[in-house]
Amino acid sequence: MAPPSTVATARHFLGIDGGGSKCRAVLINGAGQPLGSGFSGPANPFQNFEQAVQSIAEAAEQAVLAAGLSRSVLATTPACLGLAGISLPTVRAAMTAWSHPFAQMLLVTDLQIASLGAHDGGDGAVIIAGTGSCGFLQRGSYQRSLGGRGFPAGDQGSGAWIGLQAMQHVLLVLDGFAESSSLVGRIQQQLQATAPNELVEQLGQGASRYATLAPLVFEEANNRDPVAERIIQSAADYLNALARMLLSEAPPRLSLLGGLAPLLTPWLAVDVREQLSPALASAELGAALLARSRFHGGATP
Amino acid sequence: MAPPSTVATARHFLGIDGGGSKCRAVLINGAGQPLGSGFSGPANPFQNFEQAVQSIAEAAEQAVLAAGLSRSVLATTPACLGLAGISLPTVRAAMTAWSHPFAQMLLVTDLQIASLGAHDGGDGAVIIAGTGSCGFLQRGSYQRSLGGRGFPAGDQGSGAWIGLQAMQHVLLVLDGFAESSSLVGRIQQQLQATAPNELVEQLGQGASRYATLAPLVFEEANNRDPVAERIIQSAADYLNALARMLLSEAPPRLSLLGGLAPLLTPWLAVDVREQLSPALASAELGAALLARSRFHGGATP
Repeated sequence: MAPPSTVATARHFLGIDGGGSKCRAVLINGAGQPLGSGFSGPANPFQNFEQAVQSIAEAAEQAVLAAGLSRSVLATTPACLGLAGISLPTVRAAMTAWSHPFAQMLLVTDLQIASLGAHDGGDGAVIIAGTGSCGFLQRGSYQRSLGGRGFPAGDQGSGAWIGLQAMQHVLLVLDGFAESSSLVGRIQQQLQATAPNELVEQLGQGASRYATLAPLVFEEANNRDPVAERIIQSAADYLNALARMLLSEAPPRLSLLGGLAPLLTPWLAVDVREQLSPALASAELGAALLARSRFHGGATP
Repeated sequence: MAPPSTVATARHFLGIDGGGSKCRAVLINGAGQPLGSGFSGPANPFQNFEQAVQSIAEAAEQAVLAAGLSRSVLATTPACLGLAGISLPTVRAAMTAWSHPFAQMLLVTDLQIASLGAHDGGDGAVIIAGTGSCGFLQRGSYQRSLGGRGFPAGDQGSGAWIGLQAMQHVLLVLDGFAESSSLVGRIQQQLQATAPNELVEQLGQGASRYATLAPLVFEEANNRDPVAERIIQSAADYLNALARMLLSEAPPRLSLLGGLAPLLTPWLAVDVREQLSPALASAELGAALLARSRFHGGATP
């Protein structure tokens, strides 16, 4: 995306990927080469603003120090931040009001930087399947996002969704409304609880706890447990539909990202699998490349 | 349940029904006649302990004052409290440690007092369908509860569950993955939002917000909207199974309680509907009758 030859006003660019459990930063030079990276704690400004901006500043500083540069470089370095929740007006307003340590700050969605990273700064589409799930496509200034919307109403086919289906089944079994299968004992074992109340107390209402059950459901599905197979196939059906909807817009590339990608891929339909391309770089590098493209040589943000 | 003739040490008995949105109290005399009632705010000790005990004390005091008695009567009056969440060891410990204003305090589940109320202090079974859903059966000292366990993993067929199914469908429609129906526009109208993010933001993660959608889904199902019909029929299928499981234990009576009972009844199977008996009294009266039966004439609690 970066123009091949422009005069650099900034010599470095920062890319930051802020998520609900961690924050990653990378510093690149004008040629797009990574010089240093940083890693810190939760950075979801919707969930906890103060914690988020602290994590962002910390990861950014780490990246600069890891590159052998001094902290003061931050003040002359433009940064692009990809953040979940930045589409919410209140979150964007709060982030914009933050007295950030960077030369300039560009705020975009976590989806956009994931896609830019996967396609080395270029156009393309991604499906992200981890704790949550969603699809995203970018071609020039055109963007489209599909799915997502959060647990429990949205994020179909995600880790949290898979865990919820599994727990719903366990509760039906324990009440005698459904036939048991090995999935039930495995979940009781993982949660170290057997009674329905205890199991539910272990999980709470949060998406991330439910998502911890997903790898086990995949394992049982691969072992041909009929309930686990039905849940995973249903997740794959939805993600197939998501992929086909994105492919209908003929993106140059489509990548499947997120913690569940390796587990999910064998369950996807052949026509979808054949269209998948591996991700070329990280989301934070995608953010850094976008910062370079926007701020290199004085391009308007 | 009360022995027909025992010497009363207490002259009055309090029954309290504490729930997530309100607290109701009733004062009865030794003959089981209601003398006064009270009503206050949220009383779920799991969600907010301080608020719960304050609501309980307030409703109890109101009931005593409404009976034309002085506050000091509380100190000589045994009380039975039916509370959601009292099965959780931490909640029971906190409630037991409360320096309550009563002569004695008996802590039981909200289910038990609902059943006792519905069956005028006698044995029987209930299905409760409101924001949540569950089944309960009592015969002498034998108790069995089915379903429940809370949103989103449990409470199948409840108002919150129905609302969640409807919202999941709306999100699929708005992304182009499912055919639209009149349900979608009705939900957008009720939530005063059209975009997926706004709709989800309106609902949050709480069961009670999702449950506000349920009456609308029933209305659309009665208008033959195919998606609403499928959701409501699926809720009814589960509650039919719950009812048949309870009926297999041959309870003397079975009542369907909760805010959704009138809406749900026409959707239940004929064999289930024919077994339903109307509730005879309120849950707080059920609690008061239990207090009388336990504490009348010095019976051991």
